[in-house]
Amino acid sequence: MDFATPDHLRPRLDAAAALLTRLEPLEHQAIAQGFYAVQPQLDAIRQELKGSSLWLPQIPTASGGQGLSVLEHGLLTEVLGASPLGHYVANCQAPDAGNMEVLLEYGTDDHKSRFLQPLLAGDTRSCFGMTEPGRAGSNPVWLETTARLEGEEWVLDGRKWFTTAADGAAFCIVMAVTDPDAPPHQRASMIIVPTDTPGYTRTRNIPIMGEEGDGWMSHSEVAFDGARVPQANLLGTRGAGFSIAQARLGPGRIHHCMRWIGICRRALGMMATRAASRMLTPHESLGEKQAVAHWIAECSAEIEAARLLVLDAAWSIDDIGAKAARQKISMIKFFASDVLMRVIDRAIQVHGALGITDDTVLSWFYRHERGSRIYDGPDEVHKSVVARRILKEARQS
Amino acid sequence: MDFATPDHLRPRLDAAAALLTRLEPLEHQAIAQGFYAVQPQLDAIRQELKGSSLWLPQIPTASGGQGLSVLEHGLLTEVLGASPLGHYVANCQAPDAGNMEVLLEYGTDDHKSRFLQPLLAGDTRSCFGMTEPGRAGSNPVWLETTARLEGEEWVLDGRKWFTTAADGAAFCIVMAVTDPDAPPHQRASMIIVPTDTPGYTRTRNIPIMGEEGDGWMSHSEVAFDGARVPQANLLGTRGAGFSIAQARLGPGRIHHCMRWIGICRRALGMMATRAASRMLTPHESLGEKQAVAHWIAECSAEIEAARLLVLDAAWSIDDIGAKAARQKISMIKFFASDVLMRVIDRAIQVHGALGITDDTVLSWFYRHERGSRIYDGPDEVHKSVVARRILKEARQS
Amino acid sequence: MDFATPDHLRPRLDAAAALLTRLEPLEHQAIAQGFYAVQPQLDAIRQELKGSSLWLPQIPTASGGQGLSVLEHGLLTEVLGASPLGHYVANCQAPDAGNMEVLLEYGTDDHKSRFLQPLLAGDTRSCFGMTEPGRAGSNPVWLETTARLEGEEWVLDGRKWFTTAADGAAFCIVMAVTDPDAPPHQRASMIIVPTDTPGYTRTRNIPIMGEEGDGWMSHSEVAFDGARVPQANLLGTRGAGFSIAQARLGPGRIHHCMRWIGICRRALGMMATRAASRMLTPHESLGEKQAVAHWIAECSAEIEAARLLVLDAAWSIDDIGAKAARQKISMIKFFASDVLMRVIDRAIQVHGALGITDDTVLSWFYRHERGSRIYDGPDEVHKSVVARRILKEARQS
Amino acid sequence: MDFATPDHLRPRLDAAAALLTRLEPLEHQAIAQGFYAVQPQLDAIRQELKGSSLWLPQIPTASGGQGLSVLEHGLLTEVLGASPLGHYVANCQAPDAGNMEVLLEYGTDDHKSRFLQPLLAGDTRSCFGMTEPGRAGSNPVWLETTARLEGEEWVLDGRKWFTTAADGAAFCIVMAVTDPDAPPHQRASMIIVPTDTPGYTRTRNIPIMGEEGDGWMSHSEVAFDGARVPQANLLGTRGAGFSIAQARLGPGRIHHCMRWIGICRRALGMMATRAASRMLTPHESLGEKQAVAHWIAECSAEIEAARLLVLDAAWSIDDIGAKAARQKISMIKFFASDVLMRVIDRAIQVHGALGITDDTVLSWFYRHERGSRIYDGPDEVHKSVVARRILKEARQS
Repeated sequence: MDFATPDHLRPRLDAAAALLTRLEPLEHQAIAQGFYAVQPQLDAIRQELKGSSLWLPQIPTASGGQGLSVLEHGLLTEVLGASPLGHYVANCQAPDAGNMEVLLEYGTDDHKSRFLQPLLAGDTRSCFGMTEPGRAGSNPVWLETTARLEGEEWVLDGRKWFTTAADGAAFCIVMAVTDPDAPPHQRASMIIVPTDTPGYTRTRNIPIMGEEGDGWMSHSEVAFDGARVPQANLLGTRGAGFSIAQARLGPGRIHHCMRWIGICRRALGMMATRAASRMLTPHESLGEKQAVAHWIAECSAEIEAARLLVLDAAWSIDDIGAKAARQKISMIKFFASDVLMRVIDRAIQVHGALGITDDTVLSWFYRHERGSRIYDGPDEVHKSVVARRILKEARQS
Repeated sequence: MDFATPDHLRPRLDAAAALLTRLEPLEHQAIAQGFYAVQPQLDAIRQELKGSSLWLPQIPTASGGQGLSVLEHGLLTEVLGASPLGHYVANCQAPDAGNMEVLLEYGTDDHKSRFLQPLLAGDTRSCFGMTEPGRAGSNPVWLETTARLEGEEWVLDGRKWFTTAADGAAFCIVMAVTDPDAPPHQRASMIIVPTDTPGYTRTRNIPIMGEEGDGWMSHSEVAFDGARVPQANLLGTRGAGFSIAQARLGPGRIHHCMRWIGICRRALGMMATRAASRMLTPHESLGEKQAVAHWIAECSAEIEAARLLVLDAAWSIDDIGAKAARQKISMIKFFASDVLMRVIDRAIQVHGALGITDDTVLSWFYRHERGSRIYDGPDEVHKSVVARRILKEARQS
Repeated sequence: MDFATPDHLRPRLDAAAALLTRLEPLEHQAIAQGFYAVQPQLDAIRQELKGSSLWLPQIPTASGGQGLSVLEHGLLTEVLGASPLGHYVANCQAPDAGNMEVLLEYGTDDHKSRFLQPLLAGDTRSCFGMTEPGRAGSNPVWLETTARLEGEEWVLDGRKWFTTAADGAAFCIVMAVTDPDAPPHQRASMIIVPTDTPGYTRTRNIPIMGEEGDGWMSHSEVAFDGARVPQANLLGTRGAGFSIAQARLGPGRIHHCMRWIGICRRALGMMATRAASRMLTPHESLGEKQAVAHWIAECSAEIEAARLLVLDAAWSIDDIGAKAARQKISMIKFFASDVLMRVIDRAIQVHGALGITDDTVLSWFYRHERGSRIYDGPDEVHKSVVARRILKEARQS
Repeated sequence: MDFATPDHLRPRLDAAAALLTRLEPLEHQAIAQGFYAVQPQLDAIRQELKGSSLWLPQIPTASGGQGLSVLEHGLLTEVLGASPLGHYVANCQAPDAGNMEVLLEYGTDDHKSRFLQPLLAGDTRSCFGMTEPGRAGSNPVWLETTARLEGEEWVLDGRKWFTTAADGAAFCIVMAVTDPDAPPHQRASMIIVPTDTPGYTRTRNIPIMGEEGDGWMSHSEVAFDGARVPQANLLGTRGAGFSIAQARLGPGRIHHCMRWIGICRRALGMMATRAASRMLTPHESLGEKQAVAHWIAECSAEIEAARLLVLDAAWSIDDIGAKAARQKISMIKFFASDVLMRVIDRAIQVHGALGITDDTVLSWFYRHERGSRIYDGPDEVHKSVVARRILKEARQS
């Protein structure tokens, strides 16, 4: 047992921290004016980062990345994730990072050259079409979108929503039912659909918490109305959609959770700075109020505990694989998102009226991280997963 | 002891409920496009309501209102407040309602004819300048804005923010330090400043939770740079600003808290409807999940308890006056706002991804009611007020 | 709507409060040495109270009681219930009060003269055999104890536990399955079993939270091994056990919940006194710590809210009957018990090490009220009951 | 970073787990009949363990112990601590373990031969006199007990309480004010007082949560009325009492917290077993209720998070010393005790009525671990410590 951050990671973490400082003004602009307003500056930073120790951290070195382990990537993600823009500039942002993984693992050579390479180069973006407005996200095997084989083409029909970053994406990896009569977990397949395919429409950027967003910072509703793609656009084998989705999930969960921890630490820092400097009277600062001081202490402990829990899950994925670590991967989802929302909430309260304005980043986190308890399976589903396993073991012992 | 809603109030409550149904489509439009986009329709409804049993419910009949007691108005407010637009159409919206009260009680005949009458008629709107960016809202006797008497004019300098509905207001009632050397609670006075006064500037609508808002649905930063108004614009006596503000607060607190209860009941209804209708599988609804069912039960109990607590405070104001009921008035602030935020949060979780979109009103409540734990004195201040009194009694017994 | 305590109740409430002062020393002795050690003094007080305005408050005047409404009795119960001994001396203690009700409503003349009269006179005690060790208390229609008719006698077999006050009781009203093939809610009947019946054994006083208790302050396991009682000992009709138990529950729930509120208010008073007087340094009292002050404020608000919720349920029983008020009766169970446990817990924390000793009554409440979230149906069952009704209405609207 | 339990520790942990199985029946007896009733059997097990890998795990090998690091001892403590008797049989129980440490570090040769050796051999027990009834435990530098030097003797006067295991102890290490005019943190010294010293009286075993306890399982009030001991009984230097107490605290905190984690894991196991086996109907187990399942999942996550937080603190003590790790040591106190109490509470709820009986160990934990949030400085003090440091850093940055 050793809780020290690996020495060899230090330079990378320091570089990431320095990068964050540069992103802060852009972050403010992005929140006020949208993604496209800052994309030029962000892409300029991307050009700088290419070939640096921060570029594509999660991708094997053979494919041009840094080849970090899940644990190492988690530690880096924590630093980068404290800004809404941190992952984008390092080209490890969702949903592209997950799509890269899937293409690396299941893509044909053709898929790799046409879809993966431009992603890795940072020349294109992509999206992932899973959740549907008409079906509960907590039941991923019950989908309405279908793809039927007609001749040598898949014909897709249906609607997806919360398709993150569809606005501006070059292609969408779509979960669609190809085998409605198969057992539930073998009904769906993953199919690559370029966004210029006739029959594919980005219906709208969904207004979320008051904002439609744009570009990479948006979540769309998309429609498939007889959209046709070549049979070869199938990813992996037919009916393997669910199992590919599962495999994609483990490291992605670490990515999200460590990003939340990064946000938490930033919010705690802001809370402490505010409490230390805001005067209630000429002689008493906010931090001298015990209620505020105790929030700071509680947040601090909760963040540390959540952080260790996530790092332990990351380490377990490296050690025994995502499948065997599944229990821990479910656990961090609900534990860390709960801490996240509580920390943001207390940080806002410490900032008083300022906390609900857009003059700080807190209100953005408050709005846009509320989804953390919902996406990737609502917390309640993960609690049930964890309990089921424990109860099963209890029955057997 | 009698917990029945008074029979004579039923027709009014029914009328209010019917009104709400008409407001729903406008509400959606207001959230998406802003206040000014729907103001014509809202003002048309106002015209209809004038003279009806819903118009100016909180105002004495002698002044053209309904003369409801605080308790009665609370029960009506609950129904109207379930929509962000409900109070506006009945002309009992903050901050005008509070300003009407102050003008009725402390205004001169001239104040009444120039400022109050147009408000009561629904022809103008007003705002209230209290909170300052540089001073903690939790300490209302420590202000930077000053008004000094030069000849027969008050000259105002300073900045206010969170000046609700300043955008479009005809005048602002401003708290300003007139007597810096007096005891803390006698330093400030209330002064009426028409918004066309030179030296008065509405600097910006503060972006709050992603939105600048507009018109009545906005909160501004305003600046006073040597703004001059006649000496006669003083409200009440010099140095009485704090005590007038306190008096204004009791019934206003009931107004806010019952509005929150209205929101809670609406959110609970949405939660139940969603849980009852959303299918997780073809054979199981969301409401069959015990976690969801228990949230509904807990929300239901918490809302009922908070509701009774607020109604009891309203009854106490009618019975013994706002000053004697102060303990209860502080209590409902933190108890009801806590219930409010928890109910909204659970309602969102039950709606899943839909809950964070703007396709329902929940996300608007989530964003714009977060301030409830901050404005009118943060919850923590009210807890301290309540505790101080209990501890004082304990020391004396 | 009127939240004032009825004037005519004041003298009774004052008398009850005065009584409590006398009980305090006995309370301490009862906790340390057991019920039988103080029974003589308690029974002496009972003699005094007979014929006074506090004797049998819940019983109709025709039967020698005070004929209080459920609401009125609730207000009195609150005062009496602040002491573990308060209800006993007024002869309105559980489980006798519930048994008196059942006998009044369903008993034959013979039942009344043999079983009810001595109870009302305070000459005997009784118990109620419902919960079973082998069956979940949350499913009251699934029982193992049986009573079969042999000739003109019921023959009972089975085990009950948590049979409160069986130690010293003259008879037990037992729920037993008489009709195993009937629909679930019509399988059981209530039968009166005198405790000197051969085949009836009080197996043990169950050690609960470290104490076996004795007499009225104990909860026993009892066994029925072929215990025979006359057919006439059936209460009400055959198969009506469940519906009688339900009817017994409404006013009993008010009794318990208002007792909890009484405990809460006492604990809050102790907390405030302690905080006001305990010095942390020669110059700072515990109550000056904001964490402690805020607990006091939060407890105060929670208690008031819970109190109003319970009183509203009591009022509803008087107004529309226990059956129609069922939703509210379930609601108070889980809401008030939650407040109770949180208040006691904070009161202990404010008392520090003293709080976990038996030098105050808090540790007794901490231990013996933990059952409040379990008995009379665990809180979770009541949450499900409340949710089911709300969801049903949502489906129908 | 490496989260694996060290391989070399496995045999010890397995041996500890096996030992626990043997302790279970004794545990039940100890709870029902007291410590002295089982001491003969416990001491027989001690004889077996002497010289084994479990004996004196926290003590350097040079002194006959196992020389485990703080982290290693933490992992072992977790296993042993799941039983109230586990530490005693391995001779690493509080308060003796802390006293051994102090004597090893600060004791003279004479102290070691007279007081330490018999402790290490398991032939005697000891106690530690710190907390006083008249002074807040949260302010350890404000004490009433004094020791004044008369000739070559210390004369002690004052009262201590919560002196754990004083019943049967051979000596007490007492914190007493020797230099009332020194700066606050240098006023007290530690002095060894044999319990047969005239003027030393064990006044009573304090009834805690209904039980006086006995022997090692008790907490006493003790009085010093002119008790005289040789000047040489001073531990370390005069005025060093507070700093010695602080040094004693770090590893002791790990000891307590990992013990709590052990209890948590045991309670979780019981909860799962109960939920999996308890039938609510012939066809549905308790664990199929989502409320119960989610408690299990939440407990599981909270326990894991708390466990990692404590292990990280242990590792930090080994890495950088207790003083530098102080922040983490305070953090685990309030975080782990909070998890502990919540886990025990939910375990009880899952056990229903059984949970509040003494038929399981849960009710014992519920009662006797409530003190965890109070002793060693109430949680609130530790929150303030943690916050103060964070706020100080915020001011400096």
